[in-house]
Amino acid sequence: MERKSGRPEGVRPEICFNDSPLGTRPYEGEDRVTGKIVTEYESRFQSFLAAGGPVNCRERTDKLRAELARRGLAGFIIPRADQHQNEYVAPSSERLSWLTGFSGSAGLAIVLSSRAAIFVDGRYTVQAQAQTDPGVFTTIHIAEMAPSAWIEMNLNRGERLGYDPWLHTQTAADQFTAACSQIEAELVPTQSNPIDAIWTDRPGEPIGAVRMHPLRYSGETARAKISRIQSAILKMDGIIITDPHNIAWLFNIRGSDVAHTPLPLGFAYVPVQGRPTLFLDRRKLSDAVRARLNAIADVHEPAELTDFISALGRRGSPVGFDSSTSPVALIQIFESAGGKPKLGPEIVGVLKARKNSVEIEGAKAANERDGAAVCRFLNWMKREAPKGAVTEISAVVAIEGFRRDSGMLKDISFATIAAAGENSAIPHYRVSEISNLKVRRGLFLIDSGGQYEDGTTDITRTIAIGKPTKEMRDRFTRVLKGHISVARAVFPKGTTGAQIDSFARESLWRAGLDFDHGAGHGVGSYLSVHEGPQRISKAGTAVLEAGMILSNEPGYYAPGRFGIRIENLVVVRPIEIPRSEREMLGFETISLAPIELDLVDVKLLNRHERDWLDAYHARVRARLSSRVDPKTRAWLVRATRKLASRTRT
Amino acid sequence: MERKSGRPEGVRPEICFNDSPLGTRPYEGEDRVTGKIVTEYESRFQSFLAAGGPVNCRERTDKLRAELARRGLAGFIIPRADQHQNEYVAPSSERLSWLTGFSGSAGLAIVLSSRAAIFVDGRYTVQAQAQTDPGVFTTIHIAEMAPSAWIEMNLNRGERLGYDPWLHTQTAADQFTAACSQIEAELVPTQSNPIDAIWTDRPGEPIGAVRMHPLRYSGETARAKISRIQSAILKMDGIIITDPHNIAWLFNIRGSDVAHTPLPLGFAYVPVQGRPTLFLDRRKLSDAVRARLNAIADVHEPAELTDFISALGRRGSPVGFDSSTSPVALIQIFESAGGKPKLGPEIVGVLKARKNSVEIEGAKAANERDGAAVCRFLNWMKREAPKGAVTEISAVVAIEGFRRDSGMLKDISFATIAAAGENSAIPHYRVSEISNLKVRRGLFLIDSGGQYEDGTTDITRTIAIGKPTKEMRDRFTRVLKGHISVARAVFPKGTTGAQIDSFARESLWRAGLDFDHGAGHGVGSYLSVHEGPQRISKAGTAVLEAGMILSNEPGYYAPGRFGIRIENLVVVRPIEIPRSEREMLGFETISLAPIELDLVDVKLLNRHERDWLDAYHARVRARLSSRVDPKTRAWLVRATRKLASRTRT
Repeated sequence: MERKSGRPEGVRPEICFNDSPLGTRPYEGEDRVTGKIVTEYESRFQSFLAAGGPVNCRERTDKLRAELARRGLAGFIIPRADQHQNEYVAPSSERLSWLTGFSGSAGLAIVLSSRAAIFVDGRYTVQAQAQTDPGVFTTIHIAEMAPSAWIEMNLNRGERLGYDPWLHTQTAADQFTAACSQIEAELVPTQSNPIDAIWTDRPGEPIGAVRMHPLRYSGETARAKISRIQSAILKMDGIIITDPHNIAWLFNIRGSDVAHTPLPLGFAYVPVQGRPTLFLDRRKLSDAVRARLNAIADVHEPAELTDFISALGRRGSPVGFDSSTSPVALIQIFESAGGKPKLGPEIVGVLKARKNSVEIEGAKAANERDGAAVCRFLNWMKREAPKGAVTEISAVVAIEGFRRDSGMLKDISFATIAAAGENSAIPHYRVSEISNLKVRRGLFLIDSGGQYEDGTTDITRTIAIGKPTKEMRDRFTRVLKGHISVARAVFPKGTTGAQIDSFARESLWRAGLDFDHGAGHGVGSYLSVHEGPQRISKAGTAVLEAGMILSNEPGYYAPGRFGIRIENLVVVRPIEIPRSEREMLGFETISLAPIELDLVDVKLLNRHERDWLDAYHARVRARLSSRVDPKTRAWLVRATRKLASRTRT
Repeated sequence: MERKSGRPEGVRPEICFNDSPLGTRPYEGEDRVTGKIVTEYESRFQSFLAAGGPVNCRERTDKLRAELARRGLAGFIIPRADQHQNEYVAPSSERLSWLTGFSGSAGLAIVLSSRAAIFVDGRYTVQAQAQTDPGVFTTIHIAEMAPSAWIEMNLNRGERLGYDPWLHTQTAADQFTAACSQIEAELVPTQSNPIDAIWTDRPGEPIGAVRMHPLRYSGETARAKISRIQSAILKMDGIIITDPHNIAWLFNIRGSDVAHTPLPLGFAYVPVQGRPTLFLDRRKLSDAVRARLNAIADVHEPAELTDFISALGRRGSPVGFDSSTSPVALIQIFESAGGKPKLGPEIVGVLKARKNSVEIEGAKAANERDGAAVCRFLNWMKREAPKGAVTEISAVVAIEGFRRDSGMLKDISFATIAAAGENSAIPHYRVSEISNLKVRRGLFLIDSGGQYEDGTTDITRTIAIGKPTKEMRDRFTRVLKGHISVARAVFPKGTTGAQIDSFARESLWRAGLDFDHGAGHGVGSYLSVHEGPQRISKAGTAVLEAGMILSNEPGYYAPGRFGIRIENLVVVRPIEIPRSEREMLGFETISLAPIELDLVDVKLLNRHERDWLDAYHARVRARLSSRVDPKTRAWLVRATRKLASRTRT
């Protein structure tokens, strides 16, 4: 039924991709690294232009140094952050990228009068070196030297180092303060961000329209959520909510201020009793939405926030701040007015993570819809790629097209990772015109997801183009064993994600192999595809609770050769066991798409693993057959065939 | 050979236990709970008198309150602790037991003018209620209310709460300070401990003789260890060592100031350059030992410690303190003299945890010797218990006798846990005349270890007396699967114990079962049987490194019915894997004794598990046959027979 619904022109892949393997009409754009004219293909939600680049690095850094000198500052700290510590930030907050040319999703630069450095994690060291001007910025692996250590080494005694208190948490500010005091220098909060003073064509703050998130998707009224919060903060006067994800969840609203996540940027205060106060730009609110919000909260302009916080502070009563997202500026304002800030993990996030039955049903519907698109993509890919005319970019365009075919796709949940051959060995690869590879014989990895009003999806499949090597099948099967081990896990209430993470690695470990990312992250409900606190990772200290949605995505990467990842979303749910002595939990897998059987070495699977895979594929076939076209259906039956059983001990 | 060596009278179990099932000559003593006369059997290292009891509780608490009033204190905090936060404390430090009657190994009491409470963990709630006077002390499960919360509720505004700063860490003191300031009361360090003022017959401080720990056991000279420490603390002036285990390791000395652990109580200072200073009571040192120590360190009396710390403080330079064992008194003295204390994990402990090849060879020899004694015990037990004349106490006496037969037993490494029937369901059960059960049909669990100069052992076996039930075999086999899963684990460098812990539980979890203790703890080298930082537990954040020795001891407990635990010691060692991409580590099992095959349901084991058990038993047989008497040897061959193989998937 959904397949029949409104299908935008140029996205009927069954036809258009056969006619034009590289997708639809290209238009031209300038590549910022090479300056040469490149073509971009139609993808509503993702660009293939290589972002960033060193071209303007020196000039802009010189301007910044002049501005700092004017302000009597010896240096300035530039994080890749907005006022909410968001993963995706608005163009107006891309100061790090504007200054340095580095376009990665995480990093921090420090500019001093005579030297400057940019700190990035292992994913981005190569990219940062390529995108920044090495004559201006030294790229430093943050695991090898922390910014605070670099400050101690390079800032001089008595100098003043500036930072924008709206872009740092208390923890970060404390580290910089400690570093400065070590060398008897001073850390100074700036009134306005010096970059904004020199960034003449800086985009305006986003004012994406705010929509109500209806009860049929949220499953709980904002009123009910607010009173749940209020009954949980009895020891405080109230809490400041600085994480827009939590504001979106609590007030049942969605926005469009940043890419891939339907966030309305803003702040909120929830008192232990009475009406909350919401700080949202009025230009984002239609009269209807404003009326709905006024019914449950006082709505103010963001500009009024600081006076509001000062007034709260003057009351001298305890107010909770989210230690992981509160800008230190707010805390300073509150304290200087006499308030007692209670920094800590913020309760809204934990309640948001536990999805209710309506959200879970929505997630299942969204994943089934999404799975149909993925099936159509995989079938198309297995058919077209061997002809040698598919590139990573056309794959991205194709899978977006298949998702849009549902007529219900609001956005992709993150930039699709479509990686052929050696590119698949880069876990966070993002294709650009520069890196774009033709899909050849070997492995192809696609990690992608959609934003639907009823749920956020995230799924990864690795497929073989042509005949895979013995090594590829061995590695794939070990990753699959890890995936199944997590999917089948049963554990008592109170278990953390850290306790589950090693299940995903055991069979790789036995062969002396591993992968360098967590086995799973939390996923929101038509919100962020990376949601906390739940996660399956060595650092996953949060307890796994019924209703939480997580990804299950072990992988294996052979640098320069190939990469493998198998990802499904799972929901934590109670497990009934006869004569059980504990309250037990387990995972229900909700992503639906075939797992590449051409890459499975059945001999490496034990009976439980074979049974799981057969049962999963039977479910995929049963749920998706009616949702796909006849060609895809025929392929789906083959792709989900029962494994040839073998007796093994 | 060792069997022939000096065998104390009354400990030739092959004979004596046949003649006198309850062991050797009893003598009489008064039970402190009931006051009635009971008999104690010969065990050199363990008493069966029920310790503690409420008899003197009220009178002593009244005396304490009077003393506190004299000192203008509204209350006083009494931890079960000595100046070093030791697990085993000298009789002179048993203030909590003396006051309350609670004899458990962990607890804390707070006495206020009108009410008093004792805080214990889950192991001890029942025992604390039985041993203290409920009219005086309320027993509180520390997980349900923290002492600091209780203080906030019960201490009055303006009141002064005393604590002995020599018995608390900085962390603990900070919590109490915060609690008091919450209610505008005051936490006051006492100059002398008020309990000592009323405990008229308090034993003197222990002065156990200090012995050198020879190079053939330590494998590294004290000089070499000291210079390793010095090269690791370059950023500091030096470190204060407050953990006697670390002093024993660093200076290659052993003592006898506390039970079951060869500790010399004392303190030390290691400067970044030059000679360390050692604070040891001269009465513990023979001229020979003193001479050996003078060669590497300046030896002072403990009484000189505080002046020494003040002098260090006046130098104003950074000195390291072990945050987990430093008494806050020392830190206060150092700070008030102007010093900058650097609290943190103390480096000596980590170096101590990584055993060198000599220590590892010693551990293997000790475990082989110990395994022979355990075999003789198991054979005796399987033969005698069905006759119905063996009790938990005679079992304790017997296994100690078999260990002493080696002529090399210095002490047991902890009070033997010998538990029949329902008692085996209490993980930390300790038999007394009151609790002593006759071993009847069902399960019998024995958790014990020995202190030998070449190594410390700790091993648990659970055996069936008569025919076990189907449930017992199912549970035992699941525990065994967990034990094997840990024993076979292979993991990359950098893995923590927390990442391994769930391997021990997976097969129990699948049946809705679990156990409420860690899967393993670190073990010292002729030192503490509970050594940090290494551990296999949800809380095991320490990285597992080659050379560390840990226990592998999953269990299962059916309250009121039966308990199961299977424990071996393992050494972390590098694992060579063909074409491995990472530095991999694994465990080598060094404890040697049969695992009860009468309790194994082979159908529940997969091929890898069967292979492991057969290989382990073959090794046990090969290593121990020549070390035991013919009768035991015959039994050993049966007890280590190959499993009947079954094809399973």
